[in-house]
Amino acid sequence: MVRTRPLKVALLGCGVVGSQVARLMTTHADDLAARVGAPVELAGIAVRRAGRSREGVPGELVTTDALGLVTREDVDVVVEVIGGIEPARSLLAAAFEAGASVVTANKALLAEDGPTLHAFAEKHQADLYFEAAVAAAIPLVRPLRESLAGDKVNRVLGIVNGTTNFILDRMESTGASYGEALAEATALGYAEADPTADVEGFDAASKAAILAGIAFHSRVRLEDVHREGITEVTAGDIASARRMGCTVKLLAICERAADGRSVTARVHPAMIPLSHPLASVREAYNAVFVEAESAGRLMFYGPGAGGAPTASAVLGDVVAACRNKLGGARGPGESAYAQLPVSPMGRVTTRYHISLDVADKPGVLAQVALSFAEHGVSIDTVRQQGKDGEASLVIVTHEATDAALGATVEALRRLDTVRDVASTMRVEGE
Amino acid sequence: MVRTRPLKVALLGCGVVGSQVARLMTTHADDLAARVGAPVELAGIAVRRAGRSREGVPGELVTTDALGLVTREDVDVVVEVIGGIEPARSLLAAAFEAGASVVTANKALLAEDGPTLHAFAEKHQADLYFEAAVAAAIPLVRPLRESLAGDKVNRVLGIVNGTTNFILDRMESTGASYGEALAEATALGYAEADPTADVEGFDAASKAAILAGIAFHSRVRLEDVHREGITEVTAGDIASARRMGCTVKLLAICERAADGRSVTARVHPAMIPLSHPLASVREAYNAVFVEAESAGRLMFYGPGAGGAPTASAVLGDVVAACRNKLGGARGPGESAYAQLPVSPMGRVTTRYHISLDVADKPGVLAQVALSFAEHGVSIDTVRQQGKDGEASLVIVTHEATDAALGATVEALRRLDTVRDVASTMRVEGE
Repeated sequence: MVRTRPLKVALLGCGVVGSQVARLMTTHADDLAARVGAPVELAGIAVRRAGRSREGVPGELVTTDALGLVTREDVDVVVEVIGGIEPARSLLAAAFEAGASVVTANKALLAEDGPTLHAFAEKHQADLYFEAAVAAAIPLVRPLRESLAGDKVNRVLGIVNGTTNFILDRMESTGASYGEALAEATALGYAEADPTADVEGFDAASKAAILAGIAFHSRVRLEDVHREGITEVTAGDIASARRMGCTVKLLAICERAADGRSVTARVHPAMIPLSHPLASVREAYNAVFVEAESAGRLMFYGPGAGGAPTASAVLGDVVAACRNKLGGARGPGESAYAQLPVSPMGRVTTRYHISLDVADKPGVLAQVALSFAEHGVSIDTVRQQGKDGEASLVIVTHEATDAALGATVEALRRLDTVRDVASTMRVEGE
Repeated sequence: MVRTRPLKVALLGCGVVGSQVARLMTTHADDLAARVGAPVELAGIAVRRAGRSREGVPGELVTTDALGLVTREDVDVVVEVIGGIEPARSLLAAAFEAGASVVTANKALLAEDGPTLHAFAEKHQADLYFEAAVAAAIPLVRPLRESLAGDKVNRVLGIVNGTTNFILDRMESTGASYGEALAEATALGYAEADPTADVEGFDAASKAAILAGIAFHSRVRLEDVHREGITEVTAGDIASARRMGCTVKLLAICERAADGRSVTARVHPAMIPLSHPLASVREAYNAVFVEAESAGRLMFYGPGAGGAPTASAVLGDVVAACRNKLGGARGPGESAYAQLPVSPMGRVTTRYHISLDVADKPGVLAQVALSFAEHGVSIDTVRQQGKDGEASLVIVTHEATDAALGATVEALRRLDTVRDVASTMRVEGE
């Protein structure tokens, strides 16, 4: 150990994740020192409200002066686990200005304003690590930024939000309604009191933006990601999926267009075959497929949330940032040289599962089929079911652009013989 | 791009992997340059026999003077994909002496003499990267060395040899004998003409040694790894596994002892439940579970062999090594500070599945049960089957040390009433 003074880490936030980071930095101090090559110490822990006692967290380190902490001269690395846009952004800007490297778990900030953070890191020749921002301890950011740095990633597809996966899993396994499953998730601590960020897909969309950006070496922001949550998914959708050998999952899908000149990123519920590995991802687990030109199809699986797993990812990055500080080196910076534009959702090709309530009379199917044909959408299978003078049609299409599928559904709604377009859902993973 | 001269890569070997590395370095030169921050060029390709034409490989770069190539002053990174101990070891030693960093896919050399290579890298302040040595493009080395650097890994368990997995998968799905399945694997190119390294478990054991070393921050060598191959696995074993809801896989298992003071590493066929995620790893795919204290249970899955996937892993490391060269930095060196000793196989606790051919007369089960009890091995289930005056007993034990289980089997062999210990196999993954 050449260096005399220890490396100092400032911790912003001491909630579920922060308290675990503080605990592990204390209990595993010897291992961290051996792996970094110098002692790693907590310089301080910034919290919003002082006075609360936090188990395993050294009280004398706690402060409410976050700005004072991150700008301290002796701080080498700032760990940010407070989340949200402000004050996180200002604090990280100040941290970079003061010469620190940054480790953050803040997916919202990265998806909203990642380039600004990267620019700060670049300007001050510091590190910006963010493994914990996507799928907690499942290594995804480092594999995409580093392991696959010599490859060409064509697709990232996976389950990146544990809360919604828990809800859909409960709906699937118990037949519960969305509301019932959400209530259970809330009671068990899987969903927050205000579940909007999860159930409306914002959390998954932020992660999709981050993954697409690093996978395609381009800038992808939250607003570029097509986003649909799971609040409209019904028990009927799940039963219908089951009838065709599928289940419903909230998927994040980032794809390079076939011509290689653009990318797409989207988050929406989709039916996937029960035989697909993602179908067996239960409860709050996450799993992500990465398809690369040379590597082939890789899958990463594990707990995608929680204090300890997220802290594990944070500490892995802290070790890297500390090693770099010690060696006068820098980890990988932003890589957006490819500058691929993000195409709108309408350009995505996908398949649809459509349930129609129709009049039970001759010629209805012909009329419906004509609507599909007029929009250039080819039908894969049709199932007709009669019930009490009414009938339902369940149609699964071949691949078509999302725009063509959307236009077809609009046209179906205008048909006299179609009483209701009961549900539409994309079909993936085949 | 600050640097004027391009970074130069010397390639040792131009077989299945090397030719892919050469091809990708040429076709993806622009991407590599953008990701590294400077052009990356092939300095030369060392082969054993010149003259052969190699598709997509620039003929003017080919040389038979490997030593001359790796000691060239302008070479920044040496990529070694020739395999085996010599001349690889001497060439890499010369490469380090000449100031180059090294990227290698050579699991045999790393498992036999990794510390020597690491010491060379340390002495010359160079990098030694080896993602491609384990499970091709599946990121495992980097996640263990870097992503989990702030965590405590307790267990690594997985399928790390594609050839044997293909053979066992065929035996399972078609009822083929070992010999038939091996013949098919050879015909399809999954097994080499001399399949010893794969089917006797040497390849998997090398990978287990590498994984255990980095997971436990200790030195683990090939000779420390308990090794059994698949040549003794019979169609009967697989049928027997199936009857108890299991399948047979060749597993590599690296574990930290419960008291944390030692580790074990082993490769052997084992029965695992069909419900275990590893049971559905088919054909030549690999999958590895990593269990860490904070991160929980992570799984990594993908193609574990092949030219392009291995080249992908090599190029990811080339990008890292080149970036470090450019920035005057170093990647992680050897981390063996924990110095945990490797316990012998006898200390491992596991479960056994034992098939006995016994005399069909009263009291046999009591006598057999007594043998287990005398060795302190507790029986989980017994299944008796009569056939033509003989009988068979199929016994599954609870967890016991491998030594106690081995001694029990020895004692059973000595019983008059036991005609044959038809098979013994460990049971894992529950």
